[in-house]
Amino acid sequence: MRPQEIIAKKRDGQELSRQEINAFVRGVTDEIWADYQTSALLMAIFLKGFSLEEQNNLTKAMLESGDTIDFSDIDAPKADKHSTGGVGDKTSLVIAPMVAACGVFVPMISGRGLGHTGGTLDKLESIDGYDVNLSIERFKQIVKKCGFAMAGQTKKLVPADRKLYALRDVTATVESIPLIVSSIMSKKLAEGIDALILDVKTGSGAFMPKSSDAKKLAAALVKTGNAFGVKTEAVISDMNQPLGKFVGNALEVFECIKILRGEIDPQMLPTLELSIELAARMLVLCGIEKTVQSAKLEVQSSLESGAALEKFRNNIEFQCGNPGVCDEPESLLDKNLIKIQIKAETAGFITKIDTTAVGEAVSEIGGGRIKVDDKIDFAVGFECVKKLGDKIKVDEALGIVFCRKKSQANLIRQKVVDAYKISDEKPNEKFQLIKEII
Amino acid sequence: MRPQEIIAKKRDGQELSRQEINAFVRGVTDEIWADYQTSALLMAIFLKGFSLEEQNNLTKAMLESGDTIDFSDIDAPKADKHSTGGVGDKTSLVIAPMVAACGVFVPMISGRGLGHTGGTLDKLESIDGYDVNLSIERFKQIVKKCGFAMAGQTKKLVPADRKLYALRDVTATVESIPLIVSSIMSKKLAEGIDALILDVKTGSGAFMPKSSDAKKLAAALVKTGNAFGVKTEAVISDMNQPLGKFVGNALEVFECIKILRGEIDPQMLPTLELSIELAARMLVLCGIEKTVQSAKLEVQSSLESGAALEKFRNNIEFQCGNPGVCDEPESLLDKNLIKIQIKAETAGFITKIDTTAVGEAVSEIGGGRIKVDDKIDFAVGFECVKKLGDKIKVDEALGIVFCRKKSQANLIRQKVVDAYKISDEKPNEKFQLIKEII
Repeated sequence: MRPQEIIAKKRDGQELSRQEINAFVRGVTDEIWADYQTSALLMAIFLKGFSLEEQNNLTKAMLESGDTIDFSDIDAPKADKHSTGGVGDKTSLVIAPMVAACGVFVPMISGRGLGHTGGTLDKLESIDGYDVNLSIERFKQIVKKCGFAMAGQTKKLVPADRKLYALRDVTATVESIPLIVSSIMSKKLAEGIDALILDVKTGSGAFMPKSSDAKKLAAALVKTGNAFGVKTEAVISDMNQPLGKFVGNALEVFECIKILRGEIDPQMLPTLELSIELAARMLVLCGIEKTVQSAKLEVQSSLESGAALEKFRNNIEFQCGNPGVCDEPESLLDKNLIKIQIKAETAGFITKIDTTAVGEAVSEIGGGRIKVDDKIDFAVGFECVKKLGDKIKVDEALGIVFCRKKSQANLIRQKVVDAYKISDEKPNEKFQLIKEII
Repeated sequence: MRPQEIIAKKRDGQELSRQEINAFVRGVTDEIWADYQTSALLMAIFLKGFSLEEQNNLTKAMLESGDTIDFSDIDAPKADKHSTGGVGDKTSLVIAPMVAACGVFVPMISGRGLGHTGGTLDKLESIDGYDVNLSIERFKQIVKKCGFAMAGQTKKLVPADRKLYALRDVTATVESIPLIVSSIMSKKLAEGIDALILDVKTGSGAFMPKSSDAKKLAAALVKTGNAFGVKTEAVISDMNQPLGKFVGNALEVFECIKILRGEIDPQMLPTLELSIELAARMLVLCGIEKTVQSAKLEVQSSLESGAALEKFRNNIEFQCGNPGVCDEPESLLDKNLIKIQIKAETAGFITKIDTTAVGEAVSEIGGGRIKVDDKIDFAVGFECVKKLGDKIKVDEALGIVFCRKKSQANLIRQKVVDAYKISDEKPNEKFQLIKEII
């Protein structure tokens, strides 16, 4: 069947057969389909949608476009967490060691940051020597020996997704539920896991800001995960403000190690709360714990006993990083950085934060990527001093920019100030971190 | 503005501004937009549509993407005809000489055949030596000296269309009214004409088989033509059977010269009727004649006087062809061809013809192109013996295949037989050639 016939069928709103979806994915992987044909079909899928069956067939075809990881030799549950991305969203670095300390193996394939969102791989690379470019063999070894490993997607894992994702980004076809689901789930299913917890963000810093969209996406992800025999659950969590205290690669790793060390200050509590929620649900999905409540106690004790910190130290050693950061987290922070306060221009209560703008501001001073091939300055970032609902006076700090030159702070000052909406009246709304379980 | 932002706007059903449409067409012409971005926007336009203003802005941007022809030095009306294409649709070769003989200048930029439809340029090339590859300068000279010229699109004329058309063909985005209108009208407006008659085909061999679609397309073409100051009218004509007697390049030129010579047999009458209708309307649009009725008499007399045949002879000389075909049309037909009858398998009345299948059958034995770069055998073709409504007996000829080997006729025999639906009852319907004027 010629590509244009398959494109025409979806264009006309018809359902594509398994054979047609396979032909498409094979065409993309083997470069038989021209990019302009692929993007025409992506737009048709965006506008005409996919049934659940089409979505699952696309996921399966993508999964089968490359290698998958076989963990059948590990006689224990394997689980992972996936987040749809946000600002200051650093829970992977807390969850993986905690869950591994509780006896679940975590093969975590992660991504890099782009635009306003950060990426786990970038954060890890702010640890001196830490290597995220692992072969599948080495990745498996580390998971087996240490309980978890964190690495980038190899060329052999879901090659169709690499191609499709790059095309979607430049053809305005990113925000399509079947395309998002197949992209996320094919990669997660390739990890050979038994259970998956999804952290679907909603709010001003989320990929899908509207709560109704986030719910739809979460439901679609859960359906597809379960259809493939992976116990899947989604937590809808709030991204109307950066998560926790810091935004910026080294700063976020610092926050995570402080949490693993039990040296938690109040601004870090949301990071801890969300990490425990997600980790506990992973244990329940795996059948290790019966209730979320008991699982939370189990997870918490992995923190208090220091077992989780030991797991992280162990992982850093396996992945060639400097484990000294576990003993002295301050060593992650560049001594030469300057800290500049961003001060409020009016007094009142913080009622809204344009979280995307805060994330973009950090990227603009080098903490993230504007374009795919931008280099990252791991050291720079932002400390969130005031959060939603907080009272603030004129000239009091909204937050602190960690940068190399004063000009960097000046560059983003107005953007950050404008990102915070300050009103006279105290907001009635409660800023709930965990919104819903799906 | 980045391509993906323009794509996203149309994807979300918003109207594109003139600046955005200009940026798109310039991006395509100058190869700043990647093909995959262009095709994503084409699909979004296909599915979300264009307003009349967007359609006219696209047409204008495409028109301005290259050179246009300036005929202001000819102090007489300039007009052209455009057909949406069909099987046996050969009227250009009759109309251009007739209209030129009546004092209207006809700068006719034509195309080639693909799939089941033929192309004027291919037909002309079956005249020994005939050159359709004219520079704009030479094209203008011939129009001035002879009253009409027929040539292919040069690289400098509407370059955006060359690119877009090639992409639409392989991305299932051909049948979109705004894209069709801008493609046709930008090329016609570049000819520097005052008036344009459109022959919009409907029926089983038409590009848009449904009558309602053909009407919509005709209305859109007429609106845009008139918006650009070109007097435009559309004739909806029937393509439920091949037009006239022959399908195939040399055979169709033969039919046209026979008509110009007044040696018309009954099967050729529809070709004559449609040619006169379209030519007469061109004269009226140009203001040369007041009524279609008087214009038809004028056109008819250009045939009877031999003036039209002389114009054609003159044109063939200018375009380096052998004018002897005007005296001896039989010389166009290859003596070595064999004629094989395709016989009816059942008796009754012909109630339906799958005209596309007949056109494809001719292409399959070399008379047209299946793929863009196929070579054409000008000599082969098909003679329509029986037409819609005709009575036929078992083993009586439906038509005659003109081919080089018996195996060619065998190859397409069943396809042709199956294309004719034969029923017991005489059809009530009248097979009307000219359906409507828009």
